[in-house]
Amino acid sequence: MSELQELVDGVYRDLKSHIGEGKVADYIPELAKVDPKQFGIAVATLDGSFHIAGDADAPFSIQSISKVFTLTLALGMAGDTLWTRVGREPSGTAFNSIVQLEYEKGRPRNPFINAGAIAVADMILAGHQPREAIGEIVHFVRFVSGDDSIAIDHEVAKSETGTGYRNFALANFMRSFGRLNHPVEHVLGVYFHHCALAMSCRQLARAGLYLAAGGRNPVLDSRVVSRERARRINALMLMCGHYDASGDFAYRVGLPGKSGVGGGILAVAPGKASIAVWSPGLNEYGNSLVGTAALELLAQRTGWSVFGT
Amino acid sequence: MSELQELVDGVYRDLKSHIGEGKVADYIPELAKVDPKQFGIAVATLDGSFHIAGDADAPFSIQSISKVFTLTLALGMAGDTLWTRVGREPSGTAFNSIVQLEYEKGRPRNPFINAGAIAVADMILAGHQPREAIGEIVHFVRFVSGDDSIAIDHEVAKSETGTGYRNFALANFMRSFGRLNHPVEHVLGVYFHHCALAMSCRQLARAGLYLAAGGRNPVLDSRVVSRERARRINALMLMCGHYDASGDFAYRVGLPGKSGVGGGILAVAPGKASIAVWSPGLNEYGNSLVGTAALELLAQRTGWSVFGT
Amino acid sequence: MSELQELVDGVYRDLKSHIGEGKVADYIPELAKVDPKQFGIAVATLDGSFHIAGDADAPFSIQSISKVFTLTLALGMAGDTLWTRVGREPSGTAFNSIVQLEYEKGRPRNPFINAGAIAVADMILAGHQPREAIGEIVHFVRFVSGDDSIAIDHEVAKSETGTGYRNFALANFMRSFGRLNHPVEHVLGVYFHHCALAMSCRQLARAGLYLAAGGRNPVLDSRVVSRERARRINALMLMCGHYDASGDFAYRVGLPGKSGVGGGILAVAPGKASIAVWSPGLNEYGNSLVGTAALELLAQRTGWSVFGT
Amino acid sequence: MSELQELVDGVYRDLKSHIGEGKVADYIPELAKVDPKQFGIAVATLDGSFHIAGDADAPFSIQSISKVFTLTLALGMAGDTLWTRVGREPSGTAFNSIVQLEYEKGRPRNPFINAGAIAVADMILAGHQPREAIGEIVHFVRFVSGDDSIAIDHEVAKSETGTGYRNFALANFMRSFGRLNHPVEHVLGVYFHHCALAMSCRQLARAGLYLAAGGRNPVLDSRVVSRERARRINALMLMCGHYDASGDFAYRVGLPGKSGVGGGILAVAPGKASIAVWSPGLNEYGNSLVGTAALELLAQRTGWSVFGT
Repeated sequence: MSELQELVDGVYRDLKSHIGEGKVADYIPELAKVDPKQFGIAVATLDGSFHIAGDADAPFSIQSISKVFTLTLALGMAGDTLWTRVGREPSGTAFNSIVQLEYEKGRPRNPFINAGAIAVADMILAGHQPREAIGEIVHFVRFVSGDDSIAIDHEVAKSETGTGYRNFALANFMRSFGRLNHPVEHVLGVYFHHCALAMSCRQLARAGLYLAAGGRNPVLDSRVVSRERARRINALMLMCGHYDASGDFAYRVGLPGKSGVGGGILAVAPGKASIAVWSPGLNEYGNSLVGTAALELLAQRTGWSVFGT
Repeated sequence: MSELQELVDGVYRDLKSHIGEGKVADYIPELAKVDPKQFGIAVATLDGSFHIAGDADAPFSIQSISKVFTLTLALGMAGDTLWTRVGREPSGTAFNSIVQLEYEKGRPRNPFINAGAIAVADMILAGHQPREAIGEIVHFVRFVSGDDSIAIDHEVAKSETGTGYRNFALANFMRSFGRLNHPVEHVLGVYFHHCALAMSCRQLARAGLYLAAGGRNPVLDSRVVSRERARRINALMLMCGHYDASGDFAYRVGLPGKSGVGGGILAVAPGKASIAVWSPGLNEYGNSLVGTAALELLAQRTGWSVFGT
Repeated sequence: MSELQELVDGVYRDLKSHIGEGKVADYIPELAKVDPKQFGIAVATLDGSFHIAGDADAPFSIQSISKVFTLTLALGMAGDTLWTRVGREPSGTAFNSIVQLEYEKGRPRNPFINAGAIAVADMILAGHQPREAIGEIVHFVRFVSGDDSIAIDHEVAKSETGTGYRNFALANFMRSFGRLNHPVEHVLGVYFHHCALAMSCRQLARAGLYLAAGGRNPVLDSRVVSRERARRINALMLMCGHYDASGDFAYRVGLPGKSGVGGGILAVAPGKASIAVWSPGLNEYGNSLVGTAALELLAQRTGWSVFGT
Repeated sequence: MSELQELVDGVYRDLKSHIGEGKVADYIPELAKVDPKQFGIAVATLDGSFHIAGDADAPFSIQSISKVFTLTLALGMAGDTLWTRVGREPSGTAFNSIVQLEYEKGRPRNPFINAGAIAVADMILAGHQPREAIGEIVHFVRFVSGDDSIAIDHEVAKSETGTGYRNFALANFMRSFGRLNHPVEHVLGVYFHHCALAMSCRQLARAGLYLAAGGRNPVLDSRVVSRERARRINALMLMCGHYDASGDFAYRVGLPGKSGVGGGILAVAPGKASIAVWSPGLNEYGNSLVGTAALELLAQRTGWSVFGT
């Protein structure tokens, strides 16, 4: 057994007793039903090997982690003109805050807060029907992960559509400033569906490899983005990937990462590995409690922090 | 000549025609007198060699860069209890904003915005007279840089004391919430003096080596902080080192860095080098315009970005 | 001719040359079509006599003035429990601001900002279908004005429904905090329709008499609300009737008043008269420019200011 | 005994059992020492008669009520140019909030929040030494009240000077925007001293008569301000006199009023009377709990509300 596998097993073992801690997201009814007693880790290294532990093959709702993929896709479509519509700064506020939008006239601070991801969804809609845009996203995620079995959980998408008032508020607010080019219902249709993608830790770690490997997925041997763009997406993940707890994540873990309210986190160790963890219980900031702890231990023990060994 | 020296020379050459661009800080009268047509680069690698260009030996007012050293010093004195008084998150607002302080009852978001550094100065004052606290800081900066000639420019300190109304507002505001243990005048006395430290790029690059080298200054062969603390200070620099342009700096440069309104920037390439650049003209965010450009080119050409080569 | 009629004529004459100044509201397409060169005044005194000038019989879209009537109606239905859902303080922000709603968890500051009126519409919906609730409001406005010809301009209502993104944002935002009991579409259906009521100055002045006459409409000889409630609605109109220009209106005019973006203003001189003015051009705060000037002159010349003769 | 005297007695009697309720201001150490079990009422009618009850002759610290007098004085000195430096709108925030100042570049919303009164004090300083400016204010208050015995409580002034960090923050903040023409220490010297004026209810009611009587003090038979200015000061008191509880005060009491953290309130019934109440215990908004209740009863029973009988 490899050293890294032992290390992954050790992290799993050390946190096992904490499985189930934290609070499962309950504002999306369908997510509230998930069994909190699950915990998976998957580490994909650049040579294409996987090191997993726990529930690494159980699919879960990736939620906001999907914003990494839609950002990548939209950058591919729109290039750097994307930044005329969305900023690149931490917001200093919660993921669903609307205050900053009012002060900055409907322009979201970054593509990872909800408002920013809604603007990105609007860009992906350009020239498409909602169904097609959703298809593009699914296609892209299957491509980067090299796995055609990945699909949207329509029950989750439906559940969010029916209760996502805050997102309807954000989208309408941006629309009132002329910041969306498509009907709010279409934009949110795309947004809710890509958030409802179901993936396992293994699939997610594989999908994130292009960010660890300078823009190429080494397993699939295909280029996804340029080296420079991979670096920049990593920078955005580090700065903004955990909303108003991004500083804490950088401090404790030291890796670019993106969390989802379903309890998953995708983290990137540039030049080394793509890591996915999952456990549904959330901490006070809405990030996986056990998942964050796992990444902290893993980064410590591997010395993969981007801030020094 | 080494490859790195050629690279540094190349960056200098490519930006030479831009020297003098930007706007010299004018809110501190003494700084407004500085000749804008200056530009220096100093790169100190872990083996102790220096690669410099331009005005790398001209002393300048390091201003907010000093916050990296006071944070390091205060962490040494108070340990992680420091974080009970200051946060670790990007503020999402300008360096001198007071809004967040009101909403969060006088607790600064991070140690690099003015309010946070004022709280740090208050901690360094514990058990000291202001003069002694200032002495401690000068002593520490001389120690980490191995250079006893480094000193405070008292004209600059005096200039700020007489016009730093915004900082007096911040300190009094925090005091009104019981967030300072010492008289406002004492705390700001310490703050204004450490901001008035005068250093050259070469001295600054040398002083930052401990952050690039896992907490030890390899030139002096002395440990400054633990490995973990060095990593964490780097994380804070990346997240918060450029105020509300931190995201942009991470995106473009990809290195932990801390800017000062005097036109200097200290950047850290973990495991590789400590870099100081200086040019007085500032961009719209109050960071050195040519200095930021120099770091961007340097990071590109060295592949030192923490987010991937 | 009565002295008051001469006074009204004088005000009209003195402002005639300014008719057409200001900017017609253009965010509601249907309102943007209105001819700006119109100006009407109607003063209804407690004895039931009317003193009019200019276009006092031309119907216009009363827009936010309708909030006075829906508040009165909702207070009749819910009593003072209404204040558990809406505050009574000036917001200090624009009529359509969402910032305060986030800080105060979806509870609007007062019933005259858009968010507050949306909450009031939600209360009127209790136990009703939207169509019935709209019917109740029309019925009530006809009752207080003693004029069954008053009706909703359905083109205007439709126009707002199609473009009122900001109101959709506000309503969804409140809904996300559990502050609305009915579907957003229903609540806004009611809101957009009551804002689209078309009334002339004469009709409006008549409808406002109950506020000037201690809760009774002296012309119709029927009680609308208690004395105390009439006083309180007047207080709210003075404090909050002109959004973030309420202070200026109180300072210049000194009467409780409620403006609408259609260019109308209803003002109340307690114990004396109900006054309606209308001219479509708006000042920088979104209140009728000529209408406000007319009320200022009228208050000066009649000595009706509530703050002293 | 007059009907009004009976009414005043009745109000006193009905509230007697509540004397001592509320919380005495404790952020100014000297005020915290005041015995909470005190309650006075004084009503001065335009004919010069007084109707008092309880501790109406006990002097107390008028605190922010003094802002009415400094505004009157400053308007006399600077005329309407005063409004270029201070707004006339409710702030929607607490009396000592600094948030609005940052968004509006150091210009206070109105002259009754602390920041606004500090700007007014700065205007009174024009051409004066602090001692002279304080002398002018004392002189003016003695003049409007016709009572040369009124004086500043220097213990209170000193107490505030030593602990008024929040006011130091506000003043320095405004100074940083170039909004003060004099040194912060001078401006706050004036401010803290006028807030420390000690007056009884009787003296205060007498001093406020000019606002009730169209600008003239009928007792002294001397004009203080023009009719128009008296009206406008009343308008400002109604809109902004109780900070973020101004709406509630207008709703419940319906009279222009200005409260002080010492537990006093000055209210004006235009054309009828000037009223002062005092009881040190404060409600959650920092206004006298029993004093507000007294004014509510008095307004109800006299029918003096400006919003209708």
